[in-house]
Amino acid sequence: MTDINPSPETAAQHKVKMEKKKAARDKIMASKTEARGLIIVHTGKGKGKSTAAWGLALRAMGHGQKVGIVQFVKGEWETGERTVLEERFSDLCQIRALGRGFSWESQDLEKDIAAAQGAWDATMQMMSDESIDLVICDEINIAFRYGHLDPKTIVGELMQRRAGLHVVLTGRNAPEELVEAADLVTEMTLIKHPFRSGVKAQAGVEF
Amino acid sequence: MTDINPSPETAAQHKVKMEKKKAARDKIMASKTEARGLIIVHTGKGKGKSTAAWGLALRAMGHGQKVGIVQFVKGEWETGERTVLEERFSDLCQIRALGRGFSWESQDLEKDIAAAQGAWDATMQMMSDESIDLVICDEINIAFRYGHLDPKTIVGELMQRRAGLHVVLTGRNAPEELVEAADLVTEMTLIKHPFRSGVKAQAGVEF
Repeated sequence: MTDINPSPETAAQHKVKMEKKKAARDKIMASKTEARGLIIVHTGKGKGKSTAAWGLALRAMGHGQKVGIVQFVKGEWETGERTVLEERFSDLCQIRALGRGFSWESQDLEKDIAAAQGAWDATMQMMSDESIDLVICDEINIAFRYGHLDPKTIVGELMQRRAGLHVVLTGRNAPEELVEAADLVTEMTLIKHPFRSGVKAQAGVEF
Repeated sequence: MTDINPSPETAAQHKVKMEKKKAARDKIMASKTEARGLIIVHTGKGKGKSTAAWGLALRAMGHGQKVGIVQFVKGEWETGERTVLEERFSDLCQIRALGRGFSWESQDLEKDIAAAQGAWDATMQMMSDESIDLVICDEINIAFRYGHLDPKTIVGELMQRRAGLHVVLTGRNAPEELVEAADLVTEMTLIKHPFRSGVKAQAGVEF
């Protein structure tokens, strides 16, 4: 992020450098041949874990693929995304909101565990629906973190999904078992946050 | 990410702990009172920078807000997101694809500079359109990185935007001037990537 811009160069030098770069990149891309369903994890303390999952949903639907979303924790994205997905993508997108609030909103461990298990059951149903190409388990890592779901069991079931199905799992504190099993793991790191300087959460940006 | 699950506790202990957590969180949220347009930066080498920006667009449109998107680098999201945004959100979303390909695809510095400046001019137009609530400058950091745009000039113009307008800027290597000026900066870090194990880029996930 703090890289200094490249030193000035002539147009000719630039052209040669970029030709080399393109050749190297083309060669790398040509070596990638396997197509398979991926396990994708968005974790870390920064913003954008769920938001990037909606972006992936949008991208998949742009290719005419169908998406299933299970919400393991309620309250984080009630208003914006869900409304627009239900109103404009009812043909391509199923949403099941089965989580209870964040644990600090609830205080009833048994109900939290039952809700998390119900959300996982809904995920399993979506994973077995062959019309669905991408399943998003939103904030499932919170359920692991509080011991509402067992990572080993869930990862075992994930690994038995049908070929070609992509699954995205979000939330901070992704358990090690999941990171081990995943194909693509991105950590979102907070560098700077407006809450720190007294700005309130705003519709359209924060929720 | 490697945190160990909390040790077993009784339901009563859990309830007390969660009540405390909720009280602390409620207190923090109540102290956040200012509403203002934010400068949001998604940077880092990981996936999800642009994808999380589409998620923010989706969220904003879910609140009936209008979104303008300027693409500073061509080729990264031609097919999926753009198709779906143009087909289903023509009432809420404007897209201007003005970048030229990644530099290693082009090799003509002058044309790259002109294209970047044209993309910034389009951004300025969107920023002055009062019907737009959120502007996304996708991959603009690439234009900074290659010296096609001057960060000081651009940040100066960003800071003069109208009150309430949110701007999202994406791409690896965000320049220091931009990070300084931003309200919210998230770094996407690659932990694990399927390319490394020979899996090819796939429609709906990678593009």
